Amino acid sequence: MRLKIKSLKFAAGRPVAILNNETAKQLNVHVDDRILVKKGKGSVVAVIDIAKGLIKKEEIAVSQEILKDLKAKSGERVSVELTFHPESVNLIHKKLNCIPLNEKELTKIIKDIVENALTEAEIAYFVSSIYKCGMSIKEIEYLIKAIVKTGKRLRLRGKVADKHSIGGVAGNRTTPIVVSICSSAGLVIPKTSSRAITSAAGTADVIESIAKVEFSVPQLYKIIKKTKACLVWGGSLGLAPADDKIIQIERLLNLDPEPQLLASILAKKIAVDSKYVLIDIPYGKSAKVSKPGALRLKRKFEKIAKDFKIKLKCILTDGSHPIGKGIGPVLEIKDILSILKQTPERPLDLEKKSLMLSGIILEMTGKVKKGHGEEIAKKILTSGKAFKKFQEIIKAQGGHLNSLRLGKFSKEILSPRNGKILEIDNKKINFLARVLGCPADKGAGIYLHKNKNDKIKKQEKIMTFYAESEDKLKQAIKFYKKIEMIKIK
Amino acid sequence: MRLKIKSLKFAAGRPVAILNNETAKQLNVHVDDRILVKKGKGSVVAVIDIAKGLIKKEEIAVSQEILKDLKAKSGERVSVELTFHPESVNLIHKKLNCIPLNEKELTKIIKDIVENALTEAEIAYFVSSIYKCGMSIKEIEYLIKAIVKTGKRLRLRGKVADKHSIGGVAGNRTTPIVVSICSSAGLVIPKTSSRAITSAAGTADVIESIAKVEFSVPQLYKIIKKTKACLVWGGSLGLAPADDKIIQIERLLNLDPEPQLLASILAKKIAVDSKYVLIDIPYGKSAKVSKPGALRLKRKFEKIAKDFKIKLKCILTDGSHPIGKGIGPVLEIKDILSILKQTPERPLDLEKKSLMLSGIILEMTGKVKKGHGEEIAKKILTSGKAFKKFQEIIKAQGGHLNSLRLGKFSKEILSPRNGKILEIDNKKINFLARVLGCPADKGAGIYLHKNKNDKIKKQEKIMTFYAESEDKLKQAIKFYKKIEMIKIK
Repeated sequence: MRLKIKSLKFAAGRPVAILNNETAKQLNVHVDDRILVKKGKGSVVAVIDIAKGLIKKEEIAVSQEILKDLKAKSGERVSVELTFHPESVNLIHKKLNCIPLNEKELTKIIKDIVENALTEAEIAYFVSSIYKCGMSIKEIEYLIKAIVKTGKRLRLRGKVADKHSIGGVAGNRTTPIVVSICSSAGLVIPKTSSRAITSAAGTADVIESIAKVEFSVPQLYKIIKKTKACLVWGGSLGLAPADDKIIQIERLLNLDPEPQLLASILAKKIAVDSKYVLIDIPYGKSAKVSKPGALRLKRKFEKIAKDFKIKLKCILTDGSHPIGKGIGPVLEIKDILSILKQTPERPLDLEKKSLMLSGIILEMTGKVKKGHGEEIAKKILTSGKAFKKFQEIIKAQGGHLNSLRLGKFSKEILSPRNGKILEIDNKKINFLARVLGCPADKGAGIYLHKNKNDKIKKQEKIMTFYAESEDKLKQAIKFYKKIEMIKIK
Repeated sequence: MRLKIKSLKFAAGRPVAILNNETAKQLNVHVDDRILVKKGKGSVVAVIDIAKGLIKKEEIAVSQEILKDLKAKSGERVSVELTFHPESVNLIHKKLNCIPLNEKELTKIIKDIVENALTEAEIAYFVSSIYKCGMSIKEIEYLIKAIVKTGKRLRLRGKVADKHSIGGVAGNRTTPIVVSICSSAGLVIPKTSSRAITSAAGTADVIESIAKVEFSVPQLYKIIKKTKACLVWGGSLGLAPADDKIIQIERLLNLDPEPQLLASILAKKIAVDSKYVLIDIPYGKSAKVSKPGALRLKRKFEKIAKDFKIKLKCILTDGSHPIGKGIGPVLEIKDILSILKQTPERPLDLEKKSLMLSGIILEMTGKVKKGHGEEIAKKILTSGKAFKKFQEIIKAQGGHLNSLRLGKFSKEILSPRNGKILEIDNKKINFLARVLGCPADKGAGIYLHKNKNDKIKKQEKIMTFYAESEDKLKQAIKFYKKIEMIKIK
């Protein structure tokens, strides 16, 4: 079939062709099928979209990618024919039947994901296969290699260390403090973080309330050269593009299969050249994993890291309730600053955990003798060195510490009775923070006046909600009344 | 966030909003996420697409559905905010964990599929959940009810009978013959068929080479009133729109999970008001199912049909090799016509199977006494009544029997030695027919001069390939040389 090109000035990120619904019927193709678009000796495989009205029967609307590949222009004619699915579709089918894939096969799938040769539905099948069938350690290692191979990779000198939390605990923003302390001690910490997927904020969202977090790789080298560290968003660097794409499909159903979690974290650590890695695994009620799950993760992390010649430690921490006082980008930055500045109202639980994590990193890298890590970390913090380092990093990332503004609509939540706080549910508090506008509304969030195990009197403040719109505040209050987020005995 | 509407004259089939990539980053949304688009008191949930260049940062390109729902025009401003996934996403997650769904839950998912509220990736997760976890008889029945409820439904008088083959056998085009014989005997047969998914041709593709197959429901009533039967494509009638959409996602990975197969077939039979149904289950090597699989399907078909008060029979047939001589739309019509016209070169295996199936239907509907079905069917066929009826149906569907043209490029395949044909692989022959251009190229396909168990001499013709382009013929020959499609001993 020959069709006339209509350019839509549309860069879809992959070769996409839009056909008139009549033309699609004639070709017997559906949305997400593929066709071969040919011009002269050139050809490109395009994913199909179908529209009524936008284009005529004899036309084909193509994305910029196709014009470029075929060296074609609007108005020219191309021929169109059916084509078969890429080989990786068969491999995904194989994995969905729980047949393990080898290195070549997993590399093929990951390559096709990065090159946008697979549709969202096909990637969803791949995620389902991992979710339902799991992966052997060997398969996870192949996956890691494939993710690293298809992305950019940093090369850094010095003792390159890193930390990572598997997430799920509201307010648990240790990273900026640990990075500041450890890089003050001479370690190189190229910290890349994610944005929030289901939580109130990711480290990238939090730092973004005071500095830029999106950089190119050359810009990143400059920041690290200047400060020995960084606090940036991983997504813009192209270090693990396959992983970014897979996570995007996982979040549709809120899935986070263990093999993909392991591969995602370790591929990113390898991509930034980390030689020493500390993994924080919060576990417990309303955390991401249970204790047996945490122990299993630890075993697998350690095994895989060993095979990749990375010195890695896992620490299991209490993830049954929020840590710190603020939940939401600006509120969390305020917590971090109060610890770095050592103000009296700083959240001591967050400080304690940050010092503990810093201590382990200082010891495992050999910067500090065994048994003295936490003590040295504390010195670096109380001396103001860590705060100075944090300011350096923020400045290098084009930021400053002024003008932190909380949402202008707020509501104090008071205790209905005297008692003791038995439980604060992480998942519910994260969800509530999102209703308030997190992470897009930087000033939105929840300030906890009290945390787990604290005593509280009737009518005393438990927490304050912040929002940037009255509407969202109202929605959050309505939602709060419906759920039991806090248990008071 | 407030954005200016840019209309794309784009009817996407669901509310789709395209954002500039910078705007998407600011909102922290990705492709396939959802946003709430508001104007005044109206609001609509839209699925997001992201583009560079097509639209500006302060713009939002929206599909016609959104303009209509919001009563908005190009150039007007709308506000945009984050929203949560529809409830059915959580239900799909639940099913992916193999937790059974109840009637209300399955109805919710099916309704969202029909209303295009779920993305392709989310439907892929739903298909995965069925594929990996299976479904109880109860769940399949809920699924059937939901599919029927969300589609159109025929109401017909008389003894309404139907036949269906689960497919997979090349050339097995009994339907037009069975429909012609049984409606000649006074039964009402509102036969809707599918187009090919992975085979060379579906019944709809075959009939389309001589008549129209796409009709509206009122047009269909007229055809049935005139002829007591029809041979149309099910897809254009809107009888089971949810099923059509699910099949579209299944075909990406070539999946056909048993519960969905059962639900799909039975929902369509209920939708056309069939009271008597015969299911042909071909089994064996290179068929869709093995013998134990066929027996399991039979048990389930019978149980569910009973619950829906349908008289249903399953017949297990030999599906280990092709049936008939022609494979491909025009070639199969030629087989059918030769049987209806009783020409000497007609394929006797296809005739025999068609008579057997017709006989069973005539007996189960009580039209013919037990033990005499096949005999009466044969009389109807040899008397020319069935051919007359077939001509009536084709005429009522705007067709005629002239000008059946085979592809003008052909190649005879000769036997490399004397021997006996032990095996012809259905899957490979179907695939080869698709390489030749089936089902879009109506004249493409394979003519089998010999079939399983036939003796053959060296240099005698085994089969002839037909294609509408030289290129496809060459591709098919190349492919044929690489695979072992036929075993000769």
